[in-house]
Amino acid sequence: MLRIAIDMDEVIADVLPKFQDLYFQKFGVEVNPDDHYGKKIYQLPGALEIRNELYKPGFFADLPVIEGAQAGIRELQEHYEIYIVTAASEFRHSLGDKHDWLQEHFPSIHWKNMIFCGDKSIIRTDYMIDDHAFNLETFQGKGLLFTAHHNVEEKRFTRVNNWAEVTEFFRKEREA
Amino acid sequence: MLRIAIDMDEVIADVLPKFQDLYFQKFGVEVNPDDHYGKKIYQLPGALEIRNELYKPGFFADLPVIEGAQAGIRELQEHYEIYIVTAASEFRHSLGDKHDWLQEHFPSIHWKNMIFCGDKSIIRTDYMIDDHAFNLETFQGKGLLFTAHHNVEEKRFTRVNNWAEVTEFFRKEREA
Repeated sequence: MLRIAIDMDEVIADVLPKFQDLYFQKFGVEVNPDDHYGKKIYQLPGALEIRNELYKPGFFADLPVIEGAQAGIRELQEHYEIYIVTAASEFRHSLGDKHDWLQEHFPSIHWKNMIFCGDKSIIRTDYMIDDHAFNLETFQGKGLLFTAHHNVEEKRFTRVNNWAEVTEFFRKEREA
Repeated sequence: MLRIAIDMDEVIADVLPKFQDLYFQKFGVEVNPDDHYGKKIYQLPGALEIRNELYKPGFFADLPVIEGAQAGIRELQEHYEIYIVTAASEFRHSLGDKHDWLQEHFPSIHWKNMIFCGDKSIIRTDYMIDDHAFNLETFQGKGLLFTAHHNVEEKRFTRVNNWAEVTEFFRKEREA
């Protein structure tokens, strides 16, 4: 069975609303999505301290699920072995929070298929779905770039804009 | 730079004393090492509930370091990229505990090089040092079996009995 590594943040877990709230708390104005075209919200002028929130217990515990991710992963699991591969080792408390979140929202993902890592260059699967080009750069299988605000200018990888496009891509792969 | 995946439990972290203590607490007698030749202590008759301790917060937080592991990893880091790859996803609380333990005892291991996973078949490195044959079975690089009581009858892999033998193995690899 072919294997797919799927990222968490901005692929199945939506961190954007929390960053938007933090930006509002800090600056008293709503962040304009056009202002962070091609970058992260915490890369806007003066906003870097927002990133420190990632180190706090609970940050990753209550993120909304990205639309279509649950049905999409259920469909993929019928044809592929699915691994969730998430950069988590930087944030000590994210490890447990992400584990709990997966158990809550994706109970079909077995613990054997959860990888909490740092650098993803050590991952060997057939496909990888990720919002970060640097993870796909070192990947030896077929990489799919899941669209996020910060990666809209990236041109090197096959792009999927949402979960409908993910499942459609793999339907075509199976027919090819 | 060639890359080595190194396991934690029974390779750099010594879980055996804690299992011995738990066995004594449960049965009132010390476990005889000959009795668990070729298996884990919790595989002895009536001892399986000892394994439940692995789920508790703190179990992995205060394990002793295996003799020679710190100096051994420092030596290997001069020549290889070292990744710590540990099966942790089964035990929710082990994730944070193992992260803390690595920071305490192996501060030279960057968070990018920590992998808390389940099934290790998704790991792509040049070498893997592990005490479980099933992890080496699916590994595509060169696997080294680190001797533990439970694996003494395993014959399929290059065996290293201690950290002196690990560093000696890699010295010879570099000369070859």
